[in-house]
Amino acid sequence: MGGDKAPQVPVAGAVAAAKEGIGILLVGDSEVLLRELATHGDVPGGITVVHASDRIHSAEDGVRAVRNKADASMVVACRQVAEGNASAVISAGHTGAMLAASTLLMRRLPGVIRPGLAVPMPSVLGPVVLLDGGANVECKPEYLAQFAVMGRVLARDIMGIDDPTVGILTIGEEAGKGTDLVQETYALLEGTEGFIGNIEGRDIPMGTARVIVTDGFTGNVALKLYEGAAGMIFHEIRAGLTSSLRGKIAGMLAMPTFKGLRKQVDPEEYGGAYLLGVRGMSVIGHGNTGVRGMANGIRLAARGVTSDVTGHIQAGLEATLR
Amino acid sequence: MGGDKAPQVPVAGAVAAAKEGIGILLVGDSEVLLRELATHGDVPGGITVVHASDRIHSAEDGVRAVRNKADASMVVACRQVAEGNASAVISAGHTGAMLAASTLLMRRLPGVIRPGLAVPMPSVLGPVVLLDGGANVECKPEYLAQFAVMGRVLARDIMGIDDPTVGILTIGEEAGKGTDLVQETYALLEGTEGFIGNIEGRDIPMGTARVIVTDGFTGNVALKLYEGAAGMIFHEIRAGLTSSLRGKIAGMLAMPTFKGLRKQVDPEEYGGAYLLGVRGMSVIGHGNTGVRGMANGIRLAARGVTSDVTGHIQAGLEATLR
Repeated sequence: MGGDKAPQVPVAGAVAAAKEGIGILLVGDSEVLLRELATHGDVPGGITVVHASDRIHSAEDGVRAVRNKADASMVVACRQVAEGNASAVISAGHTGAMLAASTLLMRRLPGVIRPGLAVPMPSVLGPVVLLDGGANVECKPEYLAQFAVMGRVLARDIMGIDDPTVGILTIGEEAGKGTDLVQETYALLEGTEGFIGNIEGRDIPMGTARVIVTDGFTGNVALKLYEGAAGMIFHEIRAGLTSSLRGKIAGMLAMPTFKGLRKQVDPEEYGGAYLLGVRGMSVIGHGNTGVRGMANGIRLAARGVTSDVTGHIQAGLEATLR
Repeated sequence: MGGDKAPQVPVAGAVAAAKEGIGILLVGDSEVLLRELATHGDVPGGITVVHASDRIHSAEDGVRAVRNKADASMVVACRQVAEGNASAVISAGHTGAMLAASTLLMRRLPGVIRPGLAVPMPSVLGPVVLLDGGANVECKPEYLAQFAVMGRVLARDIMGIDDPTVGILTIGEEAGKGTDLVQETYALLEGTEGFIGNIEGRDIPMGTARVIVTDGFTGNVALKLYEGAAGMIFHEIRAGLTSSLRGKIAGMLAMPTFKGLRKQVDPEEYGGAYLLGVRGMSVIGHGNTGVRGMANGIRLAARGVTSDVTGHIQAGLEATLR
């Protein structure tokens, strides 16, 4: 029931994923969902509708809504994971509510101080992952040290990066030594696997570090800016190329390059951000995601389960506690 | 003497600006500067060499270097403004040192709590200005409220924007209400001229607000990321288009569009960031700036003087104190 284009997008994404053999519990108003499913004609097996009589709206306070609406689709969906009926959950609905529902219902893995929102981003060297993308506005050094461990697991298990590098996002050396948070996190991460030190904003698109740790405020600003910058440049290129015949011909010839690049910087390529540190996979899709993004998010949630991201995170955190 | 390509770039930039009638004091090792000037053949009038026997190196601690090196070129240059021999100063050298030298020698305008680094950035609606770009890693709401006033003056006087809008950079509504800094700044700015409320990272390239206020940590990360993202996309486009004959033809046809866009996102278009809130114009160039960037920085510093940015900032701040 979540996201700007519900129930169409979640249902179509579920149908696409189910065709590949991924078992789906489709949670929400069963009447609405069954009607939407019926529009797909040949609905594959493996989709079960789980009724939820309520839903959380985008204008609500996320945490309060989760606490008060036991029958909201998002809450019921997270409960499926908590109760062992599902291994992963995905929603394109209210981000704050989904963070709260995942944390409150699925609960944190042992030893996890704060779950972190891990956001895949493009770089010239391939995908990088930034966390925290906004789950924790204020962070302590200990959170960031755990984000580094969790991010490395995601980079390895989901992105296929062998020995992921880790960097702390901070400001230019010339402008100072960064915040206390940066300096204290540096002390905690120094000497740990993959740690390459501090990086700057420009290092994100360069792929200098494959795992970028930062507080949720800076991380959320960075991910939104990165998306916006890419969108702006494509917008300007399109405007420039469609303003003349010469440009139009160039645009047609350059189409394969632009398509490839658009795909590379397209948030739908991964289908969402991962809330790491809870018991099970929780994927938070873009509110305006399309069917491709939703299906990709479901696929990646499933891949997170089969490659045991959660188990590897737990093992990784235990190793740091020893 | 400052920047990666000194003395060539500053001298060539000075020569270009002097040809347009801008009076220049060229500060540094006079022997080196005179030798470099001699390579320009027809040196225009209006360039005076001011000898400085020392310089600040990039590896030094900026503040300490400024305090200890009274004869460093940057310190001598800022002193020219403090003593009334010059109206503006520009350097592509050590950013931290230049921030310190400008603040310590030129001193703050009356009522200014902290000078802020104002960085022009591109957007689909034209240039926007973000501050603080890194002068103040930790900020208080009162600083940001002054940044809004100072940024509006720069947007009006330098960018020619009539009634500039002001936004506070924060995270997505869905992820929470932002930091205490954001909330308290909001309370201070509410109802002030041009204030449009909170904006997100994606609003920077969209031009939603023409003046973007934030702390120097977030601001510095954002500006470096924005530059890096633009650079990455151009890099990928070039790589894509040069990999096939079809692409190469497209690239040639699209050249005017790409050139225009590159120029639009080129930091050298403005030539630097402005330290606002000190007595006189202080422009901090990119360390790796070319001659075009240096000349543009000098031109804009001069325009800041003729349009009385400093006087307007002082008047604007006095108006808020009344």
